[in-house]
Amino acid sequence: MPTAARVPARFEALLAKRAVAHVATVGPRGEPQSSPVWFGWDGETLAFSHTKARQKYRNLVADPRVAVSIADPDHPETYLEIRGTVTIEDDPERRYINAMAMRYLGHPFPPNPGEERVIIRVRPTHVTYQG
Amino acid sequence: MPTAARVPARFEALLAKRAVAHVATVGPRGEPQSSPVWFGWDGETLAFSHTKARQKYRNLVADPRVAVSIADPDHPETYLEIRGTVTIEDDPERRYINAMAMRYLGHPFPPNPGEERVIIRVRPTHVTYQG
Repeated sequence: MPTAARVPARFEALLAKRAVAHVATVGPRGEPQSSPVWFGWDGETLAFSHTKARQKYRNLVADPRVAVSIADPDHPETYLEIRGTVTIEDDPERRYINAMAMRYLGHPFPPNPGEERVIIRVRPTHVTYQG
Repeated sequence: MPTAARVPARFEALLAKRAVAHVATVGPRGEPQSSPVWFGWDGETLAFSHTKARQKYRNLVADPRVAVSIADPDHPETYLEIRGTVTIEDDPERRYINAMAMRYLGHPFPPNPGEERVIIRVRPTHVTYQG
């Protein structure tokens, strides 16, 4: 697999699709964990919304290293993996989950009283790809 | 997220689809890595083909813990995560990659002289899901 520190330009089209990104983190016993998220890409940073109530958030607070893989829904042998270290920002106005719901569903995300949302951002430090 | 040690029966339909599974492993510096694979499920074990030349194989030889997440291509908020410890079997006759290529592409996988294939199997010890 080729590797780079920047996302090759030809993957911009994949990053603009409503594809699902799978986020790998390291759990409390050093074990891998994985789950899908909606994501956004601004040309330099991949971001996703998360709640403080879930294990992946706790994993990233303890160890901010992350790997995110995205398969092209239209070309199943094409994929991109972005690795990096996350920054976490509180999102009390639910700005990012609503932006993602607009991108993926076309309407805001239903409110969930008491839920604490954060924005998790990944700046690529290592990029692997195929296709 | 609900958790279990067995895959709930309603996810059998997802596991029968030609969805892509994203495999998270732990790399040499304890960092997460993630990449998509074609997979098969026999009711008890999730399996995928891999080559010995790639980093994910080396990761799993060093630390056999794995997490595999599969998003439902038809219901984007439904997903399944299977965690477990892998077993690795040599596949000199390329049996499993050909089975997967038949499942996903409808024809055998093109030969790649010198490539050493293995079958990686995951028996779930921890299952997380949504939807």
